[in-house]
Amino acid sequence: MTRALLDSVRAYRRGHAAKVLADFAELLALDNVTGDVPALHRNAAALAEAFTARGARMQVVALDGVAPVVVGRLGTDPARPTLGVYVHYDGQPVGTGDWRTPPFEPTLCTPDGRAIPFPANGDPIDDDWRIYARAAADDKAPFAALLTALDALHDAEARLAVNLVLCFEGEEESGSAHLRGYLQALRDQLRADAWLVCDGPVHHSGAPQIVLGVRGFTGFDLTVYGPLTEIHSGHYGNWAPNPALDLVRLLATCKDDAGTVTVDGFYDTTRPVTPADVAALQALPEVEPALLQRLGLAEAEIAGGRLTDQMMRPSFNLRGLSAGDVGAHARNAVPAHATASVDIRLAAGDEPDRMLRLVREHVARQGFHVLDREPTDQERRSHRRLARFTPTAGYPAVRVPADLPIVARLARAATEAAGREAVVMPTLGGSLPLHDLVDVLAAPTVILPIANADNNQHAANENLRVGQLWYGVDLWALLLTQPW
Amino acid sequence: MTRALLDSVRAYRRGHAAKVLADFAELLALDNVTGDVPALHRNAAALAEAFTARGARMQVVALDGVAPVVVGRLGTDPARPTLGVYVHYDGQPVGTGDWRTPPFEPTLCTPDGRAIPFPANGDPIDDDWRIYARAAADDKAPFAALLTALDALHDAEARLAVNLVLCFEGEEESGSAHLRGYLQALRDQLRADAWLVCDGPVHHSGAPQIVLGVRGFTGFDLTVYGPLTEIHSGHYGNWAPNPALDLVRLLATCKDDAGTVTVDGFYDTTRPVTPADVAALQALPEVEPALLQRLGLAEAEIAGGRLTDQMMRPSFNLRGLSAGDVGAHARNAVPAHATASVDIRLAAGDEPDRMLRLVREHVARQGFHVLDREPTDQERRSHRRLARFTPTAGYPAVRVPADLPIVARLARAATEAAGREAVVMPTLGGSLPLHDLVDVLAAPTVILPIANADNNQHAANENLRVGQLWYGVDLWALLLTQPW
Repeated sequence: MTRALLDSVRAYRRGHAAKVLADFAELLALDNVTGDVPALHRNAAALAEAFTARGARMQVVALDGVAPVVVGRLGTDPARPTLGVYVHYDGQPVGTGDWRTPPFEPTLCTPDGRAIPFPANGDPIDDDWRIYARAAADDKAPFAALLTALDALHDAEARLAVNLVLCFEGEEESGSAHLRGYLQALRDQLRADAWLVCDGPVHHSGAPQIVLGVRGFTGFDLTVYGPLTEIHSGHYGNWAPNPALDLVRLLATCKDDAGTVTVDGFYDTTRPVTPADVAALQALPEVEPALLQRLGLAEAEIAGGRLTDQMMRPSFNLRGLSAGDVGAHARNAVPAHATASVDIRLAAGDEPDRMLRLVREHVARQGFHVLDREPTDQERRSHRRLARFTPTAGYPAVRVPADLPIVARLARAATEAAGREAVVMPTLGGSLPLHDLVDVLAAPTVILPIANADNNQHAANENLRVGQLWYGVDLWALLLTQPW
Repeated sequence: MTRALLDSVRAYRRGHAAKVLADFAELLALDNVTGDVPALHRNAAALAEAFTARGARMQVVALDGVAPVVVGRLGTDPARPTLGVYVHYDGQPVGTGDWRTPPFEPTLCTPDGRAIPFPANGDPIDDDWRIYARAAADDKAPFAALLTALDALHDAEARLAVNLVLCFEGEEESGSAHLRGYLQALRDQLRADAWLVCDGPVHHSGAPQIVLGVRGFTGFDLTVYGPLTEIHSGHYGNWAPNPALDLVRLLATCKDDAGTVTVDGFYDTTRPVTPADVAALQALPEVEPALLQRLGLAEAEIAGGRLTDQMMRPSFNLRGLSAGDVGAHARNAVPAHATASVDIRLAAGDEPDRMLRLVREHVARQGFHVLDREPTDQERRSHRRLARFTPTAGYPAVRVPADLPIVARLARAATEAAGREAVVMPTLGGSLPLHDLVDVLAAPTVILPIANADNNQHAANENLRVGQLWYGVDLWALLLTQPW
């Protein structure tokens, strides 16, 4: 790609910025909570329509009662390499609290959090403005970037140097239970020389980032049972067992004061960190002091701990606790049950089923009779400590070699698009269903994030920094036109 | 009271049962969640009207923004003793879950839980039917019993042997913060030879019960802070401190495996159990096997523990836990904060403020910087472990001597009304603001419960067994006419 072409792409996106943001906001206004199949169908249809309008041949493929996968192709020149592009279009649940603006009413804000109207054509636009909405960063941003890049290249009458194969998933945020089946069924349509997984944030330092792997994922809910119904805490409290107290005493046995998970065997299968990994990790800029500042924390869980070191190990995160009520709604009663929800991030080498088995065995060793359903009355009467263990679907981690030629090419394009040296990250902290992609599609697979690191992904007030969208447009313009 | 008069009272309530239940249902349909001052005003007005209709002189006294107290007098004959009658008309919050029928749509059910229409005049009525509604047992049942007894005695043209002084509170379920002030202001109107506190359940065995004391009450919410906002559990989990995990590890230090509270000094001020207490406790029927069966429990918290022994000690009940979400709404994020809510029942001798101070000191000893407000950004950055301690208003326990003459009289009336030997209970497990009554009104004060023990008080599906209402009517008819 000539420098002139990149300049004309930039001129195009500056000239059409209002329209680009408006189109992006329209996509974000489509609610896309994972598991809401009718809503996800609406998102799939909108995406198919948008890429069809850019000349792609699109298809919405749906298993009954499951979010569809959207597949497509743009270009069929056998002389060009074919790049696979994976994006997911479902979002995390939005919860009940703490959103300053409704999650599906995309809102533009200044860096100090003031909501402002979306710009009109020709208005100046600040790269540090942010668009707030569920999925603004995770993971609808790549759609807006790729669509805009295609428009800009079309406007410049540029010739594409690659064919694209598209695969947009709608079930990533709930564990990708059907992705493997979809990929197997569509394998012939999805042949590509390499796959780019467009998801995740750039480096905390703001540097562009190429990511060679992801952690796997699993998790579980654990419900501990007390009396059949809530009972008065004066008449029965401290005589009847309290399931909330039993639960906290159980959870306290899962991790020690030093931040180490104390479930037997938890770290045994984790693939050891190699010298190459260590070199890549050590090359990464230090982010911890700035992160502590931004998150309002005095210290990491392990005092002085490096963020990237933690990503090479499996994690145990207590994502939720629920029993009775707190605050104004607290009732003076012994709760009938108490539930904890835990997510486990897996490092390369860990298997989801084995990790869940280890936790379940740990619960049993603490004196609990463990079930995978509600207890019967007979079971309640037979076991002083009774727990229900409900696993979350999961998948293993993957990590690709750092010396693949595509890694260097991507790093060069990212460096040029951002005007700043790209970093190469051995693994992302988050999880993606790369395992199924790598396994079924059998092509080199690398992750290419564009979102800002402080995007509040998975939480309230998710947002995308506008400048990240422009980075994505420029990066895609380079990837679509550079020689491979 | 002659046997003939009791027979005519019984004939009256049988003949008017449909009307009595309908009137009771109308009172229960008035929502009365503690703290909802406008709703509580509606309840107060209804009660004042009902007792005025029976000839009492009633007054609704309200501090600005506080639930009113309803006071009244029926009879002014200086030759008769004056009995004080305390009832509270506010109810516990109703929570969000698990009510089979709406809490303020009173529903009549058969013993197997089938909803049936309220009876028409003359229909047969089963004593084992139950009325489901918030406050059906705690504490609107005594109103229905006393009103019906007055109607029955009026119908029989019976002469009352006592004057009544009435005091109905609307803030009991949230800690009676203004009761003392109300009592002090109204002390002259509230002179009585003895006070009967009408609240709580009869004995678990079903026997009628006279109660000589109550536990005191206090409690607190404890919020532990993590990052400023929820953050992605993959990118930050197990690097950023998890406040839910910090909270469960903290709570686990508050009570040991043997059910003993491990907060330093927790049991130090509790008045020792006397030989007379022990004698009364030992005379109580064994209830534990039936209770375990009814509550669906294998064992008590302390294996083989006696319920009544626990009531003579202060308790530590984890009434609520909240962090992130569980189940389908769980997000793969590190929660920003986690909250526990605890209620503490006090035995005679314990002071609320001292107990809260002990707990707060315990939290600090576990390495937490403890605040009584939200932390500032500076405090977040300075303390790895940060907690907010929010106390609940409370009051001490009281216990009156077992040899008061009124105790024997009440026990005789209860035995006659129920046709079954009454038990004398040194203390109720629950809490009532008896402390303020005893302190300000300076008259012997005894508790006279009528509700069934399995009434789901403070929880979902609160209910009153219909036969308990009839017991209350008969008991009041005896108390209002027997020589004192």
